[in-house]
Amino acid sequence: MNMVDIILKKKAGQPLTKEEISFFARGAADGSIPDYQLSALLMAISLKGMTAEETASLTMDMMHSGGVVDLSAIDGVCVDKHSTGGVGDTTTLVLVPLAAACGAKVAKLSGRGLGHTGGTLDKLESIPGCSVEESEEAFIEQVQKIGCAVIGQTKDLCPADKALYALRDVTGTVNSIPLIASSIVSKKLASGAGAIVLDVKTGSGALMQTLDESIALAKAMVDIGTQAGKPILALVTGMDQPLGTHVGNALEVKEAIDILSGRTGGDLLAVSLELGSRMLVAAGIACDVEDGKKRMREALESGAGLRKLREMIAAQGGDARVCDDLAYLPHAAYKIAVPSVKDGYVSHMNTTDIGYIAQDLGAGRKTKADAIDPAVGLVMDVRLGAKVKKGDSLATLYINKPELAQSAIARMQEAISISDEKPELPPLVYASVSPEGIIRSI
Amino acid sequence: MNMVDIILKKKAGQPLTKEEISFFARGAADGSIPDYQLSALLMAISLKGMTAEETASLTMDMMHSGGVVDLSAIDGVCVDKHSTGGVGDTTTLVLVPLAAACGAKVAKLSGRGLGHTGGTLDKLESIPGCSVEESEEAFIEQVQKIGCAVIGQTKDLCPADKALYALRDVTGTVNSIPLIASSIVSKKLASGAGAIVLDVKTGSGALMQTLDESIALAKAMVDIGTQAGKPILALVTGMDQPLGTHVGNALEVKEAIDILSGRTGGDLLAVSLELGSRMLVAAGIACDVEDGKKRMREALESGAGLRKLREMIAAQGGDARVCDDLAYLPHAAYKIAVPSVKDGYVSHMNTTDIGYIAQDLGAGRKTKADAIDPAVGLVMDVRLGAKVKKGDSLATLYINKPELAQSAIARMQEAISISDEKPELPPLVYASVSPEGIIRSI
Repeated sequence: MNMVDIILKKKAGQPLTKEEISFFARGAADGSIPDYQLSALLMAISLKGMTAEETASLTMDMMHSGGVVDLSAIDGVCVDKHSTGGVGDTTTLVLVPLAAACGAKVAKLSGRGLGHTGGTLDKLESIPGCSVEESEEAFIEQVQKIGCAVIGQTKDLCPADKALYALRDVTGTVNSIPLIASSIVSKKLASGAGAIVLDVKTGSGALMQTLDESIALAKAMVDIGTQAGKPILALVTGMDQPLGTHVGNALEVKEAIDILSGRTGGDLLAVSLELGSRMLVAAGIACDVEDGKKRMREALESGAGLRKLREMIAAQGGDARVCDDLAYLPHAAYKIAVPSVKDGYVSHMNTTDIGYIAQDLGAGRKTKADAIDPAVGLVMDVRLGAKVKKGDSLATLYINKPELAQSAIARMQEAISISDEKPELPPLVYASVSPEGIIRSI
Repeated sequence: MNMVDIILKKKAGQPLTKEEISFFARGAADGSIPDYQLSALLMAISLKGMTAEETASLTMDMMHSGGVVDLSAIDGVCVDKHSTGGVGDTTTLVLVPLAAACGAKVAKLSGRGLGHTGGTLDKLESIPGCSVEESEEAFIEQVQKIGCAVIGQTKDLCPADKALYALRDVTGTVNSIPLIASSIVSKKLASGAGAIVLDVKTGSGALMQTLDESIALAKAMVDIGTQAGKPILALVTGMDQPLGTHVGNALEVKEAIDILSGRTGGDLLAVSLELGSRMLVAAGIACDVEDGKKRMREALESGAGLRKLREMIAAQGGDARVCDDLAYLPHAAYKIAVPSVKDGYVSHMNTTDIGYIAQDLGAGRKTKADAIDPAVGLVMDVRLGAKVKKGDSLATLYINKPELAQSAIARMQEAISISDEKPELPPLVYASVSPEGIIRSI
């Protein structure tokens, strides 16, 4: 088999065979195909697409290119959740404890912050003592015992995906539905997930900024999971503003604890209930979404969710007192309000920019080597549609370096549009995509 | 400027600015942009195209990426000819002496065989003693003195093109009109050409196998040359069978000498007169194509063309006696006929395969390091439309290694289709493309 022939075939818009896909996935993993040939193929795939069969083949090849986590020692279906990444999106820390409190088994391998979006591992590490590194044995034992664990990869998962992703990042080929779908689902399958609920973000802070693209991505992933024989479904949810009000690592842990303590709610809780209820259905615990939501709400109101978070933090070596006293979380030295420059309605947010502003305050990394400041970030004081007067606080910066304030204030004022007319508010859930079909919200 | 942004822009189908094109052309020449980014961009260009302005910009950047030959010391307009490459296509050795005999100045930098097509330098080197390496000074002096010279590159021309071409060859991005056009024209401009006549081959032995693509390539090159202020025109000519009857290095020299001696004619002479007459027009020697053809024919019939070839061979150190006695050329030890397997008409030839068969007999190189056997090749005994009986010779192999015969015979029989019905014959000249427009032959 010849790589140039494979490239030419895809360049001509023809589907590749299983063997051709395995050839280049193997070559990406073992380095036998040079980067310049892989990147030419990635560009051809980006522009010519892949069929559902090709995407599924690539997914399975990437999954099997490295280790696969075996969760069979855990009783029941292990249900996993994946978000395509958002700003102020800490659903994992809300729904994992709630779902586990309802009896689900959640053995979750999470990632770190990337670009403008945060990462659950970074958030957990903002809790004093909390570790996200465990052996596979300890991980499985923790899930079997308390129902949930959220840690980093225990072994080299999907090296083919790792090689292709690194190339995509520097060759303008990140934004391709078959490449994104196969990358995400291969990692979920290699992580041992028995059932998968996906949260595909859409809007100004999402990888896919249009609804049609977001639905297409959701459908591509559901198709792959179904072909792999896994219960899988996806929600397409809004990312036209930060999902929670808090953006930053300890700040997002604080918001999750506030929610699980019943002190606050809002969109973050709403989306967590939508996703979590479907996890309970996928795990065979709830009979339908409504039943799932009811169980999740009961776990919230009874405090069972917060108790489960406390157990999980303790199991991972963290100071579980944070669940009862937020003073144990790291705090930023300065809080600085971002005033509105005029009267009007909050009509639009550039959510990607808001993510990058938090990153630049120290909440995220520009390069892998950067250190994160767990305490810093920002809290949104308004949501889309809010009426504000000139001088009202749009957001509050939480910073340790006062010299960063001036530029961050100006950028936040730029990222949040104020208009004279009250805008229409976007829905929270745009669509649900399951093997049965696509249902768009009205 | 950021290479990923340039890739993303072209991926989205947008035209690049002059500055963006210069950025990546410079990066290709000096190695500062990694191959994997260049190849992703080349694939995006292959699939999304380039405007005439972008193609012209890239051409000028590649031309200026290395040395430029200065032919200003030669009196009159130096006129150059370029063929996109064919099989049995030795027009250069026919038309250069004829045009020079008519008073044109032809300072030609030629290439070596590539893939299934032959190269003029390899053909000239089959003449005992003939050198294709000269200093730029000696090259210019030869053209000034006798009117013509055909040698290899005297300096490092178009290193940006060299880098991009090497990548295209291994990433499935050879076949892109803006990339081919800019590659060819940049080298012609860097070679110092004052006027350019292009021979774009079309058909089963050509890079561009469809007429529309061939015309589009011709138009792209004429547009670039015109933007660069050079008189330029192109003919689109047939490559549905080897142009001459002889395929191989000394064999093609023999055919050129046969033609210049008046012993033979055929399609190779006809195309040489079409191209050569236009060179005379471009050089300001003939007033129109008809006048140019008349002058070329006079040079042929008077023997002035053959005398010019003799002078050129002698000037380049070769044994000019080959022009009078073909015995001085190298000869193959074995001649083996390829018999027709049935009665019928020669209806189709896979000309690319015929080129590769000659290559495999030793007439061409598979890798740059391979040595060529100047004596070997094949001679076509039939042309399209010929009526043959089973057992008639379709072609004669000229070989030095008898063990190669069996497979070559079978492949030739496969490459030449015999049908019951007399086929329609393709035209020799399909179209002419000039700054004034495109004229298709009827």
